[in-house]
Amino acid sequence: MSKISRKNFFRGLALGTVSLPLVIRSCGGQNIAQDNSSPAIHSGKKYRWKMVTTWPPNFPVLGEGCTLFAKWVKEMSGGRMDIRVYGGGELVPPLEAFDAVRSGAAEAGSGAAYYWAGKDPATQFFASVPFGMNAQQLNAWILRGGGMELWTELYAKYGLVPMLGGNTGVQMGGWFNKEINSLEDLKGLKMRMPGLGGKVLEKAGGTPVLLPGGDLYTGLERGVIDATEWIGPYHDYKMGFHQIAKYYYTPGWHETGTALEFFFNKEKFDMLPPDIKAIMESAALRLNGWMLAEFETQNAIYLKKLLEEEKVEVRSYPDEVLAQLRIHTDEIIEEITQEHPFCKKVYASYDQFRKAATDWAALTEKVYYNSIQI
Amino acid sequence: MSKISRKNFFRGLALGTVSLPLVIRSCGGQNIAQDNSSPAIHSGKKYRWKMVTTWPPNFPVLGEGCTLFAKWVKEMSGGRMDIRVYGGGELVPPLEAFDAVRSGAAEAGSGAAYYWAGKDPATQFFASVPFGMNAQQLNAWILRGGGMELWTELYAKYGLVPMLGGNTGVQMGGWFNKEINSLEDLKGLKMRMPGLGGKVLEKAGGTPVLLPGGDLYTGLERGVIDATEWIGPYHDYKMGFHQIAKYYYTPGWHETGTALEFFFNKEKFDMLPPDIKAIMESAALRLNGWMLAEFETQNAIYLKKLLEEEKVEVRSYPDEVLAQLRIHTDEIIEEITQEHPFCKKVYASYDQFRKAATDWAALTEKVYYNSIQI
Repeated sequence: MSKISRKNFFRGLALGTVSLPLVIRSCGGQNIAQDNSSPAIHSGKKYRWKMVTTWPPNFPVLGEGCTLFAKWVKEMSGGRMDIRVYGGGELVPPLEAFDAVRSGAAEAGSGAAYYWAGKDPATQFFASVPFGMNAQQLNAWILRGGGMELWTELYAKYGLVPMLGGNTGVQMGGWFNKEINSLEDLKGLKMRMPGLGGKVLEKAGGTPVLLPGGDLYTGLERGVIDATEWIGPYHDYKMGFHQIAKYYYTPGWHETGTALEFFFNKEKFDMLPPDIKAIMESAALRLNGWMLAEFETQNAIYLKKLLEEEKVEVRSYPDEVLAQLRIHTDEIIEEITQEHPFCKKVYASYDQFRKAATDWAALTEKVYYNSIQI
Repeated sequence: MSKISRKNFFRGLALGTVSLPLVIRSCGGQNIAQDNSSPAIHSGKKYRWKMVTTWPPNFPVLGEGCTLFAKWVKEMSGGRMDIRVYGGGELVPPLEAFDAVRSGAAEAGSGAAYYWAGKDPATQFFASVPFGMNAQQLNAWILRGGGMELWTELYAKYGLVPMLGGNTGVQMGGWFNKEINSLEDLKGLKMRMPGLGGKVLEKAGGTPVLLPGGDLYTGLERGVIDATEWIGPYHDYKMGFHQIAKYYYTPGWHETGTALEFFFNKEKFDMLPPDIKAIMESAALRLNGWMLAEFETQNAIYLKKLLEEEKVEVRSYPDEVLAQLRIHTDEIIEEITQEHPFCKKVYASYDQFRKAATDWAALTEKVYYNSIQI
């Protein structure tokens, strides 16, 4: 992709402050339309809802998913629930989506729960933490292992109803202009790495740099940063990083399977008739599967492009580096859980599930990748 | 679980002829109720449909899933689509579900596509083939990689509409009373292993034995068979195999992520109003995620029970044995695809997707299990 088309593609990107490459469009006006729905619950009533998202309009996979969700809900409700999806910055800035839905300025939102870590650090476990669970395990914990009950309890404090709505799968480790062969190579490494991952990097002696998504290409090209993480081959290819970075690193230890979410204004959601509530939930969970399937499919296609057409060189984080990053992750999670009681409760559930899932995977999924799919 | 409660649990199990432990209840009468629905499509019309399944009533996870599907459809449709779920043998015998839906005797069915391999060998790729893809990859191929289009084309030949409706995840390799240390140990091994897995075992010198699900415990206890496969820790524990078999083998090379399915009478499905069609599809895909999450969760819990409380000894198939079984699998698939043109078309799509997914997983999921989740 040429620089020009790349720039067009990401025109308007601004500061991303937390992981998953949050891409923020500038917000011209914040003329938020008022909600006109009334609390009637007869099933013939029509609803016109607004969904504010943290994604640029039609952002591949993540933004597209919101549009699909709205389409499915409209189809299933026979047009009674009509959700208009707004890209980040179209109605409110991306990182104001949570508060906009909380206040009722919009009825629905789409994001990733760790975007709200500044409001409540417990949110992170419902999206991704470094060295955390992968998609299959996180889905299992949330849907069948008690995670959803905790998430619902957490968001209820903020007047919101959460739903699981997608997963990126294991992400890549990012683009580097220097090799990482030892812990020493992390010292002073200037890397775009937001969220908990950035804190882990900092503990290891690196320098996490906050750069807007739209400035990453130039920053990497000019040496403002030595490295940047993004998502995986599909989105990374569109950003053009392969044109200016030497090495593509694996694994994405900082995001091992990031869950996406929908959130709804609880008061408004509670007033919906039961059939539309059930429709929203099924649409979100259908999207949950669709998104992982789409990431798997597109990332496989674009990895091939990067390797075969662009001759990208892949490198692996050395084991000793991963081991040290894991130690720092444990330290940071210990600090957070000591400070926040609800975080401790959530992490206890998360960690117990992870341990059992690890033992089970050691006999099945791990063996599959090592001995069956070769 | 005592023998008595185990027997109660599986009372009425009869012959299972294909993989996934098909458990068949005897069918007293086949007094199939006639369908009374008319082709009206106005959205207020009520439908009462029958779903015939290949599972015993309330069979854990698989049968429960059908009940959940019906519940969700009823909720979302405001009661307009009311599906009554019949266990295998209650309306028609399990393996007649396909034909019962085809004929319109029932409108809906639940099973696994490889149960119909005798009708068309191409069905197997939409459930599981030995050394095939795992759940995450199979979901991606079916939902986003062209699999669903081929499946729809295949089932249309039989007057059916298929939907993806669950996955078991990687299964276990089964229960053995002798160790498998070399290819030599497979010679003469009497093992309950239906479907393509059984054919592979036979090529390797083993003797696949067809025993009813309900006779497996006694067969293994009395040495009628040396080994049996089933599903994973949750279902295996309930069968009580740990009481009478010495070793629990990994991996389930014969079932690396078996997809479950719903199928509908095409003529009747096509007459449904669009909102109910969309509701059925979303409910199936919601169940698809629910089921894998439930298997992950329960299998992890029951593995712990088997290892810690029952002191079960786990063994791994040696690499040379897996390598030889893979060669035989390739031979069998080659034979099938040479003989059946549509099978060749489906496998070409499946195999191309698998190769790309393997390369992608080598940098992500595989690294996750080897370097992150340790």
